[in-house]
Amino acid sequence: MCLNGTGETVRARTGGPVHAEPARPEAGLPAWPSRPGRVVDLSHVLSPTTATFDEEKPTRETVAPALPEGEVGFHFNRWTFLEHSGTHLDAPGHVVGGGRLVPDIAPEELVVPAVVLDVRERAAQDPDTVVTVEDVLEHERAHGPVPEGSAVLMFSGWSTKWEQGDAAVRGMGTEGTWHFPGLGAEACAFLVEKRGVSGFGVDTLSSDPGTSTDFPAHEVIGRADRWGLECLTGLERLPPRGAVLTVGVMPGEDASGAPSRVLALV
Amino acid sequence: MCLNGTGETVRARTGGPVHAEPARPEAGLPAWPSRPGRVVDLSHVLSPTTATFDEEKPTRETVAPALPEGEVGFHFNRWTFLEHSGTHLDAPGHVVGGGRLVPDIAPEELVVPAVVLDVRERAAQDPDTVVTVEDVLEHERAHGPVPEGSAVLMFSGWSTKWEQGDAAVRGMGTEGTWHFPGLGAEACAFLVEKRGVSGFGVDTLSSDPGTSTDFPAHEVIGRADRWGLECLTGLERLPPRGAVLTVGVMPGEDASGAPSRVLALV
Ligand SMILES: [Zn+2]
Ligand SMILES: [Zn+2]
Repeated sequence: MCLNGTGETVRARTGGPVHAEPARPEAGLPAWPSRPGRVVDLSHVLSPTTATFDEEKPTRETVAPALPEGEVGFHFNRWTFLEHSGTHLDAPGHVVGGGRLVPDIAPEELVVPAVVLDVRERAAQDPDTVVTVEDVLEHERAHGPVPEGSAVLMFSGWSTKWEQGDAAVRGMGTEGTWHFPGLGAEACAFLVEKRGVSGFGVDTLSSDPGTSTDFPAHEVIGRADRWGLECLTGLERLPPRGAVLTVGVMPGEDASGAPSRVLALV
Repeated sequence: MCLNGTGETVRARTGGPVHAEPARPEAGLPAWPSRPGRVVDLSHVLSPTTATFDEEKPTRETVAPALPEGEVGFHFNRWTFLEHSGTHLDAPGHVVGGGRLVPDIAPEELVVPAVVLDVRERAAQDPDTVVTVEDVLEHERAHGPVPEGSAVLMFSGWSTKWEQGDAAVRGMGTEGTWHFPGLGAEACAFLVEKRGVSGFGVDTLSSDPGTSTDFPAHEVIGRADRWGLECLTGLERLPPRGAVLTVGVMPGEDASGAPSRVLALV
């Protein structure tokens, strides 16, 4: 997530040093599927009406208009958007001063095993729920250990609200409060320190839950020098583990994040 | 490639019907590497000074400035660019009226085997050289048949000119003419019709050579309903065949193309 497009930076505060040991598989790509059979698209289409954390929406201007049927020429558009629009990646430097930016992330960190934590049932009952260490341990009891270098994805079922627009996706309460599930900071710290994950992902607008005002999951992930994907979709088509994620983050110079085409090989 | 950002569409002309049989592997992903060991980044960093076919460059505005070292907050930028900036994909509808746009391309078409045609030696002698059917056949004699559903990539060595800027990348001649290698239309037609490829790629600014004024490779690729990647880099790190390309094209609504993070699994 990021803020409201006004340029305001919130809650900047002095913290500890940036953790500087990103998970980079040294000996080849881990947990490679023996023979994947399909590709699952985990990215929403980016559009001028897509749900966003910030008020500012992407814009598209037609530069050379669409051609008449069957005719040859050139058609194209111009886009303008904030880096944290659509399905996108947060680089560590989005959250922590001096943290790595998008081009600093090694290609090996962008092709990783996926672990899907299904919290749909709880999220349907309580939109303010967060992923806990116990959720991780329960998943491990059922499906085996979270592989080193993997990406852990919260599957809350929230992506189906995307077609309803901002109010539904943000879970707007009567007093303007926001309500959607997110990652708990303790679970993030556990996954970094005890499991050595490469990154995180959520199918909501933000790694932290909608009620958060201090964004502790963002802080843990950023200080740990890991990336976070936000606004994922299609997680219902992934197994609990065994897929490989390819994170096609747009490689913008000095970018704090960027729209990303995330394709999972299953 | 596309044109000069003025909105002008050139050489629109009536042609035959759009070929409507894209290569979509039906039975799983073809030619999967048994256990890839590394990820090769085939995308240039997108920046306000990157070499472009069009005069208009991407722009980046800081919205929330970078944070002091170790402090927590939120840093992000706003980007504006033409769809055909940086390492990017041309969708069929960029070139042919009624052709598919970016979101119409199936995820399975974006994870494909790569075949690399090394024409560096000839390109160094003659910047106007094009890839021929004979180049394809010679590659096949040495390395085996081009797999169905693959992407055929021209490796001219041109990506090293990117750090020198537009004039070098465009191969500006004394009278303003452009000179860089490209795909021959006959080779494109052969690869579509006889080999059933999914797409094409070049490490230059355009699928057609710099001297082209009628863009026949673009037309063949677009009418065949295939995609084309332009401005690739890093091809020297790929084997002649055997890598798998993941094409992380930004999924812009109604987009004729978009910056793409292309990662190859080797
Ligand atoms: Zn974000
Ligand atoms: Zn193009």
